[in-house]
Amino acid sequence: MKRTTALREIHKAYKLPSTIKQLLARPLPSQNANVHENENVTVDGWIKSIRKQKRVSFATVSDGSTSAGLQAVLQSSMVPKDLTNGASVRLTGRLEKSRGAVQEKDLIVEKVEVLGSCDPETYPIQKQTLSNEFLRDNVHLRGRTSAIAAMLRLRHALQKRLGAYFEEQGFTYINTPILTSNDAEGAGETFKIAKIKPDTPQTPPIEEEFFSTPAHLTVSSQLHLEAFQTALNRVWTLSPCFRAERSQTSRHLAEFWMCEAEWRDLSVGTLPNAGVHGICTVVEGMLKTVIGELLHEPETIVGPHRAELERFVSEEAGPWRRISYAEAIEKLQEEYARQLQGSSTLFEYPPEYGKSLQSEHEKWLAEVYVRGPVFVHDYPASFKPFYMKMNEVREDAPGLGPEVACFDLLVPGVGELVGGSVREERVDVLVRRMLEAGLVSPKPEYNVEELLSWEGELDLDKVDLDSYEWYVDLRRYGGAPHVGFGMGFERLVGWVGGIENVRECVPIPRWAGRMNL
Amino acid sequence: MKRTTALREIHKAYKLPSTIKQLLARPLPSQNANVHENENVTVDGWIKSIRKQKRVSFATVSDGSTSAGLQAVLQSSMVPKDLTNGASVRLTGRLEKSRGAVQEKDLIVEKVEVLGSCDPETYPIQKQTLSNEFLRDNVHLRGRTSAIAAMLRLRHALQKRLGAYFEEQGFTYINTPILTSNDAEGAGETFKIAKIKPDTPQTPPIEEEFFSTPAHLTVSSQLHLEAFQTALNRVWTLSPCFRAERSQTSRHLAEFWMCEAEWRDLSVGTLPNAGVHGICTVVEGMLKTVIGELLHEPETIVGPHRAELERFVSEEAGPWRRISYAEAIEKLQEEYARQLQGSSTLFEYPPEYGKSLQSEHEKWLAEVYVRGPVFVHDYPASFKPFYMKMNEVREDAPGLGPEVACFDLLVPGVGELVGGSVREERVDVLVRRMLEAGLVSPKPEYNVEELLSWEGELDLDKVDLDSYEWYVDLRRYGGAPHVGFGMGFERLVGWVGGIENVRECVPIPRWAGRMNL
Repeated sequence: MKRTTALREIHKAYKLPSTIKQLLARPLPSQNANVHENENVTVDGWIKSIRKQKRVSFATVSDGSTSAGLQAVLQSSMVPKDLTNGASVRLTGRLEKSRGAVQEKDLIVEKVEVLGSCDPETYPIQKQTLSNEFLRDNVHLRGRTSAIAAMLRLRHALQKRLGAYFEEQGFTYINTPILTSNDAEGAGETFKIAKIKPDTPQTPPIEEEFFSTPAHLTVSSQLHLEAFQTALNRVWTLSPCFRAERSQTSRHLAEFWMCEAEWRDLSVGTLPNAGVHGICTVVEGMLKTVIGELLHEPETIVGPHRAELERFVSEEAGPWRRISYAEAIEKLQEEYARQLQGSSTLFEYPPEYGKSLQSEHEKWLAEVYVRGPVFVHDYPASFKPFYMKMNEVREDAPGLGPEVACFDLLVPGVGELVGGSVREERVDVLVRRMLEAGLVSPKPEYNVEELLSWEGELDLDKVDLDSYEWYVDLRRYGGAPHVGFGMGFERLVGWVGGIENVRECVPIPRWAGRMNL
Repeated sequence: MKRTTALREIHKAYKLPSTIKQLLARPLPSQNANVHENENVTVDGWIKSIRKQKRVSFATVSDGSTSAGLQAVLQSSMVPKDLTNGASVRLTGRLEKSRGAVQEKDLIVEKVEVLGSCDPETYPIQKQTLSNEFLRDNVHLRGRTSAIAAMLRLRHALQKRLGAYFEEQGFTYINTPILTSNDAEGAGETFKIAKIKPDTPQTPPIEEEFFSTPAHLTVSSQLHLEAFQTALNRVWTLSPCFRAERSQTSRHLAEFWMCEAEWRDLSVGTLPNAGVHGICTVVEGMLKTVIGELLHEPETIVGPHRAELERFVSEEAGPWRRISYAEAIEKLQEEYARQLQGSSTLFEYPPEYGKSLQSEHEKWLAEVYVRGPVFVHDYPASFKPFYMKMNEVREDAPGLGPEVACFDLLVPGVGELVGGSVREERVDVLVRRMLEAGLVSPKPEYNVEELLSWEGELDLDKVDLDSYEWYVDLRRYGGAPHVGFGMGFERLVGWVGGIENVRECVPIPRWAGRMNL
């Protein structure tokens, strides 16, 4: 009891003055009370706009805490010359019920201090609409625009809600490393850390690896996260990832944030591909909870896409559609046949079983066929990574090749938002897949074909696991069926915020050829 | 109302089964109730220890959600051979009041499934105490030890509490970039991104910069965070930072996490160095709140250091001590004089005004002189970075050189935990400091001495601001006095967790010569 009081005292003693958001949320003092003494407030912010009239002037002041801003009412005689758009101010006064219709409260200003002036002639953030490209060039100032500030608040809100969701579900947040010895499972699009000058003088100076082994920037936290899954059972992270891809699309960045989670497969012993459906259920619950909560918050989700999001998470709409990859291909092929007959535009890539879904296919599935979020599950193993669990061969569908227990969540406007899978926990199958992918090699006295053709269980002693030894260890020592997913955080921000390009979904974007600041 | 119900339904529908922590927190069913139908629970975890007796066996099972683990009681006849330390299990049964004294509840097991066995002969995580060095070599498995699992839960708890603290204070969380064009203010200990193969074939092939300009890994989020401070007023981050330092100490990592915050200086117009004291107050409030809350949580802070932490945050102890750098040097010199006279060990570095405080000095100040956390403020400008605000010259102390408005928080056992300063917002002073530090250069027709010797305001047109142009812009356009700090997150984990080496304060540590996984 004593301690709780002490804690409350600490909270009080170190409380910062209210932000504009906090001030606007406070009830107004009652009309009869003498409020002059105790209701004087101080607001620190920037001038967003000012309208000078003969007697009274009106300024909108923002501190970034809310999109609304606060209307400040000043006697025109007290308005200093440098109270212009962009100027940094401290205003002291009292909050009163607004006489205007737009906002509930006005700040009746008693004292104005301009703490930093802003030349309205040269200030890049002018009031007219500025192009995204211009704002990317002025990325250090673009947080001052309403759109980018709203995105930053949305990122913050999404992170907070995701954290609360995972907390409630018993997940532990893990900071996985950024620097890794893993070169992206051989995909070859990683950034490498440059070698450094030798520690001791040599002639000629040969540059050396700081970590004694080559270091890359991580492309995904998954493998590292799996190590902690085998200790803490349910783990997640929201962590920066990197791809040295030169392609310039509205969905890719060189530096981006991924929300990834791994947990024990809870469906063991139930239906054959229950694992994948279990992950889909968690992902759907996560997104419906987080978006549902944000829809309750005033002004976090505004814009024409709001109604669509409301529909997607509504109880009436029921669970999101789930279709198998094989079924998706069937539907796409039917559509392609229609396209061939009619006048509508053809898919650039004819859909075909055994090939990746293209962007245009994903868009059609989510936007036309399902008109909402859709899980596509059980893809052919041929173009999916080694760590995805091999399904049982389907006796009922002889035309289909081997498939893996994975899914992608496709959503309108974005395409692939989440991807996940059951992880292969059988050491034998896992190492075979790594041999096939060329990630590990047979020991000198053996060859791949020989090892792979062997019908019985693979003899691990014949394989040089090298940098994947640890990953196999996770299975060797008390490994259990487990599952996981990854979600591009900027894509989530874009979907929920109704923002077209991921370059506007991150504070300071990085892509090929561009590194401002 | 309708929406709230829908949200509640979502929460229920997608709830994962309880973790052991959640099960242990649930009240036991009353003795009279018929609990067999509805109280059957399933626990997914790993065997931490097993004690087989003739009739009944006892296993401790952990899922990492709590340090306690759950005692499972099994008929010895139903114990499979491979139910060994490290094995992955699913146990189904009912929770009952324990007959033992140690734990409140036992799981009376009705069904055992071993999902993944673990060879007790070769399993590296044996039950005897394992050295830190051995566990660093087996970093992929070390999360399964009690000590590392406790650290991971503590990291999680600290992040959550820090987030809640900043939320309450109106801060927005910002993901600052990891890749930066900034080379650490010239300090020269950054990691560089390696060049990549050219996009189009050339002879000879000349490697090129992916971003067209050299890219480094960030050493601090501060400068980028400042850009968003001028938009959202109060901003913070917890973000990975990197130093290519070869030194091997118990306090340094090549990859570490920093908690950094920037906000408007709330002390404008009050006392001369009120700015620094304002930051100290926020930092003290943050640490007392976060640690105070953790001390309330069961089992988050355990160990002999707990009593000391309780003392540091207690109301009775009052505010933490604050002394100026000049005073600290005076006290250190008095101590050095005593050391010279007596038999006690001498400081290796004689304390001297104008020189950095050494580790041994910081330790003495926190552990001997103050015996608790202590803020040391206002250091000489000569060895501090360019962005720290220059103090007014002190007329009362003619022996002292120019000082900056900064502080370090020193705590027992760790040394420097937090460092912060008022940021220089005066364009003229800032650019002079950058010229002095060689970060920016005069335009070709001028020279540094000439520009710096000029008594009046510096003419910015004579300086080539180059890659610092944006940083100066933040001041030029509505810049206001603002303040900030940075706290090494692993050091905080070490302090609160009573952990000696930062290598045991992060899931997967990186240091010179070492890159496991």
